[in-house]
Amino acid sequence: MRVAPAIFCILFFLNDAIGQHPVVYCTNSEIISLKQGISLYPSLSSSFREMKAAVDPFIGKEVDVPLPKDAAGGYTHDKHKANYTLMFNAGLLYQLTGNKEYAELVRKMFLKYAALNPALTKHPQATTNSPGRLFWQALNDANWLVYTGIAFDCIHHYLSVSDRQKIAEGAFKPEVDFFTKDLRNWFDIIHNQALWACAGIGIVGIATDNSDYINIALKGTSLTGKYGFWANLDQLFSPDGYYVEGPYYARYALLPVYLFANALNNKFPQYKVFAYRDSILQKALSCALQQTNLDGSFYGYNDALKDKTFFTNEIVEALNISRKAYGKDITLLPVAKLQSRVTLSKGGMLIASDLATTKNIPAHLAYRSVEYTDGASGDKGGVSILRSGRTDSLTSLIFKYASHGMGHGHFDRLNINLYDNGHEILQDYGAVRFINIEQKWGGRYLPETKTFAQQTIAHNTIAVDGASDFNANENASEQYTPVKLFSNIKEPYIQVVSAAENRAYNGVGLHRTLYMLSLKEYSKPLIVDVFKANSNTVHQYDLPFYYLGNLINTNFRYTYFGNGQTTLGAHNGYQYLWKEAEAPVVKGTMQFTFLQHNTYYSISSLGGDSTSAYFARIGANDSSFNLRREPAYIIRKKGNNETFVNVIEAHGNFNPTTEISANAYPSVKHILLLRDDEQYTVLKIELKQAIIRIAQSNRDTGTKTQHSININGEPINWSGPYTIQIFNQTTD
Amino acid sequence: MRVAPAIFCILFFLNDAIGQHPVVYCTNSEIISLKQGISLYPSLSSSFREMKAAVDPFIGKEVDVPLPKDAAGGYTHDKHKANYTLMFNAGLLYQLTGNKEYAELVRKMFLKYAALNPALTKHPQATTNSPGRLFWQALNDANWLVYTGIAFDCIHHYLSVSDRQKIAEGAFKPEVDFFTKDLRNWFDIIHNQALWACAGIGIVGIATDNSDYINIALKGTSLTGKYGFWANLDQLFSPDGYYVEGPYYARYALLPVYLFANALNNKFPQYKVFAYRDSILQKALSCALQQTNLDGSFYGYNDALKDKTFFTNEIVEALNISRKAYGKDITLLPVAKLQSRVTLSKGGMLIASDLATTKNIPAHLAYRSVEYTDGASGDKGGVSILRSGRTDSLTSLIFKYASHGMGHGHFDRLNINLYDNGHEILQDYGAVRFINIEQKWGGRYLPETKTFAQQTIAHNTIAVDGASDFNANENASEQYTPVKLFSNIKEPYIQVVSAAENRAYNGVGLHRTLYMLSLKEYSKPLIVDVFKANSNTVHQYDLPFYYLGNLINTNFRYTYFGNGQTTLGAHNGYQYLWKEAEAPVVKGTMQFTFLQHNTYYSISSLGGDSTSAYFARIGANDSSFNLRREPAYIIRKKGNNETFVNVIEAHGNFNPTTEISANAYPSVKHILLLRDDEQYTVLKIELKQAIIRIAQSNRDTGTKTQHSININGEPINWSGPYTIQIFNQTTD
Repeated sequence: MRVAPAIFCILFFLNDAIGQHPVVYCTNSEIISLKQGISLYPSLSSSFREMKAAVDPFIGKEVDVPLPKDAAGGYTHDKHKANYTLMFNAGLLYQLTGNKEYAELVRKMFLKYAALNPALTKHPQATTNSPGRLFWQALNDANWLVYTGIAFDCIHHYLSVSDRQKIAEGAFKPEVDFFTKDLRNWFDIIHNQALWACAGIGIVGIATDNSDYINIALKGTSLTGKYGFWANLDQLFSPDGYYVEGPYYARYALLPVYLFANALNNKFPQYKVFAYRDSILQKALSCALQQTNLDGSFYGYNDALKDKTFFTNEIVEALNISRKAYGKDITLLPVAKLQSRVTLSKGGMLIASDLATTKNIPAHLAYRSVEYTDGASGDKGGVSILRSGRTDSLTSLIFKYASHGMGHGHFDRLNINLYDNGHEILQDYGAVRFINIEQKWGGRYLPETKTFAQQTIAHNTIAVDGASDFNANENASEQYTPVKLFSNIKEPYIQVVSAAENRAYNGVGLHRTLYMLSLKEYSKPLIVDVFKANSNTVHQYDLPFYYLGNLINTNFRYTYFGNGQTTLGAHNGYQYLWKEAEAPVVKGTMQFTFLQHNTYYSISSLGGDSTSAYFARIGANDSSFNLRREPAYIIRKKGNNETFVNVIEAHGNFNPTTEISANAYPSVKHILLLRDDEQYTVLKIELKQAIIRIAQSNRDTGTKTQHSININGEPINWSGPYTIQIFNQTTD
Repeated sequence: MRVAPAIFCILFFLNDAIGQHPVVYCTNSEIISLKQGISLYPSLSSSFREMKAAVDPFIGKEVDVPLPKDAAGGYTHDKHKANYTLMFNAGLLYQLTGNKEYAELVRKMFLKYAALNPALTKHPQATTNSPGRLFWQALNDANWLVYTGIAFDCIHHYLSVSDRQKIAEGAFKPEVDFFTKDLRNWFDIIHNQALWACAGIGIVGIATDNSDYINIALKGTSLTGKYGFWANLDQLFSPDGYYVEGPYYARYALLPVYLFANALNNKFPQYKVFAYRDSILQKALSCALQQTNLDGSFYGYNDALKDKTFFTNEIVEALNISRKAYGKDITLLPVAKLQSRVTLSKGGMLIASDLATTKNIPAHLAYRSVEYTDGASGDKGGVSILRSGRTDSLTSLIFKYASHGMGHGHFDRLNINLYDNGHEILQDYGAVRFINIEQKWGGRYLPETKTFAQQTIAHNTIAVDGASDFNANENASEQYTPVKLFSNIKEPYIQVVSAAENRAYNGVGLHRTLYMLSLKEYSKPLIVDVFKANSNTVHQYDLPFYYLGNLINTNFRYTYFGNGQTTLGAHNGYQYLWKEAEAPVVKGTMQFTFLQHNTYYSISSLGGDSTSAYFARIGANDSSFNLRREPAYIIRKKGNNETFVNVIEAHGNFNPTTEISANAYPSVKHILLLRDDEQYTVLKIELKQAIIRIAQSNRDTGTKTQHSININGEPINWSGPYTIQIFNQTTD
């Protein structure tokens, strides 16, 4: 853990008298240029008009500041949320227009909070051990601090000294005290919620010139630096910028990080917060954006809600502040263009100017194959994203071998997800939650998040003996991470990544290697997935593929349970899966084709005596209809050492307008395992127009090791962990 | 049935010598102005470039004309389809460019067909009693005649007399003879396939100056006018332009109708085909377009494939020809703009010019509430579409009380479908078919079309005693149509339509009345659905709602069959429904809320001692995964006389970006039946902000009849079939 070197020697600044205001969200000089910018840039002026339209109806009105009562989605929850947004907006409008009615609106609301807050206790709907006061959970109270802190800063000069004191003591202090005393164990922690709390208290500290608050925000309640903003920045992000909870929460964490960093930088430029940890904030934003689909949605792994996109306020704010902090980045401009709105800030104005003056902004972010380490020191596994194709036809394969990822992590070691042409093809279920929909348990995470979505069987990875990784014990899972064995994403035509997980199940080694091969004969890449499960004893290995689309064809027979369906199992998520169909033994090369958004996809797999297949559907035991009724194709093998070889390909398409169906059949014809043992796995994939031979070294994955083996009398020699031979021979 | 008055007296024209060419798709003078238009109008020039790009790679190449072998989706099927498209395009390009390479390409292909066709017999994959020769079904051969007929006309002047004869005798005559002799019973019929066959033979007749073909095309093989083009125009369309098979097939029928009419009009303007039957072609196009969703897809009832839209070639052609025939229609221009392409024709050029010169073209077609009669004389029931709201927030309720609609009709008497905000909300399943996808039974209609999708239980209407209307006997169903009792779509705030069906089940009268009420307190209309089932004996009445979306909430308890599911029944489509949950008795006002595309929808229903509810899901007994696993909410009542009262409403929305959920609860609080007997039904609907009282006369639906009844001591007096009182009283 690194600590900002400048932090101790500038403490005396914090004890200064009342500083310049505004300073948190924007400075005086920024406001002056912003006022000019509004008339210059269309996107800035439309943001201004929207903000005015949202605030003006409240001018001169009494705004309700109700006694907290309801859970998320209920009236008091939504009202307090609307209130802090209104205060933020009105505060900013006061700065931009000088119209005191805006300031007065904020002042009046603040005085109501100053009257309300001191008497509050734990929210009546609180269900977690981090209860809020205005809201059911402390996190929302932290949101409130962030936005109202900015609002206070904006109307600072409008307030009398006594108003300021009333608000600081009545509205802010009870919240800050609650966080730093009652909820000290929640505040002093490394977590996105702590980041929000730090940002809230830090912003209020800067807004109210309270150096104690600022110090606590930066270094935790004990001021040792073990917790607080710097420690969270150090530990939540890997050196590559990967956020430990995954992209859905990265989006959420980036907002307080950027808002507070901006305030800190305005107030204390000497901290150089944007340069901190080799510009970790810049890396974190870039990393989060690389983990999005073409439609802007963040990849759905861990407890993600899939409709969260980079169109959210969080990413608009972060991107706009990043523009101010890091300068123009042409590769990110497509995101700004798609967002088609900017914040009323210096960064927002710069983006508005970039959009107005930059020609030929690409349609999409510059997506590329990337690998991110996980962990504060980058030693806790990571995520690789193999990509192929351009713009609308981009194929993205996500391979996750990261750490557990805290309480919202899933038991999904060595999971893969596939996106293609802007659509999810092999999905991660994400979280089971209807956020802020009151009827769905007050908008909280629903129980099926833990009982189904986080379980291993809910993922595109192997579940052993009907159990989940680490028996679904989060603490156990947090102790270990998978190990990346080798990878190469530099070569566009052959990309590979390999990782192993040996702790998730006692006595079972799991080793998955993914090859993304782009052959000139095919417009889409072939994904070769070699997944080895090894043990001294017999186990049941289940490998699901949560495909999205319509089943078109299989080349094997199965029994469909047409009159009566039962569940696939009784525990560990299996109880949520209907067993729709079963193929008890599937030999040879098994093939399964489905159609999704008018593209055909096939999974061709190595069958065998110990191989069976299932078609399953989510929804059993889901009496509240919380789960989507989506399908899975599950390949089961039983044995000691079993190797799953799956070739996943997109091929052809169906055009409903012309009714033309092209290339509706997979290009794979046969998959043969030529050798498979502890040392080597050698396989041959016969395609319609080529033969692919892959030899990989399972034990020694050194990049320079020489290998020499003999397959059916033919020698194969290579160096490094693998070799791939492609014969452009037409087979028949 | 009317017959074109001019048709007999101009017969001598048909015996004329070789006429002007081209004349079928376009005339010489049109070609001259088209050539200029291509450089003038962007949409015309892009169509030209696209066509050139599609054809140029074939110039100077040998094009395969294979021996017919495969079903739809297979190679020979797709090749012959691609061939006629190529011939059409190349023929037109020859006219537009004068480049003889295009003509030569068409000629060479024609000569191959002239060699192939005489030896053909019934296609090896034929499964119907109208087999094709080049294709598995005759219909596709008719398509071939239409396009190649146009191609022949385009290169007429390029061909030598002997070429012409070779092609006429070798390529065309075997097909024409097959249709008019072998398949005479299929050709002499009133049906969309006959329309295609007539158009094919008629176009070939005009292209080859064969008056026999033209006569047969117009008046059937016996030349009596009982069959053929005129008879089909007379009988397939109602006086309002409603096409008997519904909108999906209307789209398909409009193409041959418009192409042949255009050719006829070019050749024989004195026929005045576009004025025929009070401009029936114009009405038919308008009627078809009114039956589309905002995304351009045709409403899904009868055997429809839902991805068929007005972006298809069929509607582009019809709309473009209609522009030439009927002049500029500003209400249709939005469709042309959305299509963003035009045909290379006179009409296409006119549309291109309209698009270039018309300002402020609306985003959507001028959708409005409409009613269409069905039947040649307009006496076979019909379809009413009640609409409310504008552009993107349009609500469309479709009430179908039409005739059976031939072989692709469904047993769906008194069915409703609901579209809102451009999405399907209460769906018709449509057809079970993966068109042209070879793996899915050669792209044919799948068996589940008949066994599930056409059955009554697959619709949002009452199924009695677990059976379908007319016991799913098509001939019986064709004999009767429901009767519209009254309607009023003129008043935008209160729209109503009522119809009865008394033949579908022995001894059971069905009577459905739909009110669409737009109250000032609500942004979306309330739909009040009063569905009466009357009998002297006890029956089981099932009323499904095939909702699309996520179940959010019910106000009643149910048992979810979480560990084991069985089917809802064994016959008549019930065998395809999983019984997910059951509520054996639901009293009072039952409410069910679901979320679709971020809008909440609720169905509030009158419960009672005899009322039970089911949640079902399509997919049981569907071993080939042909069906979509979509849900239904089914209300069941048992008794002699039962009245279903359902209030369907869209309310509120969820914004995933801001996470704000607004108005997540229905506005309906209680539904009370104040009186319900043979004579009158009176009901009271208590809303959050108003009370609605509806009194309807069930027996005497005369528009001037005076009614005077007494409810709880309070008199209600009105005239006409119904009265609606709205009290703007806040209830609590």
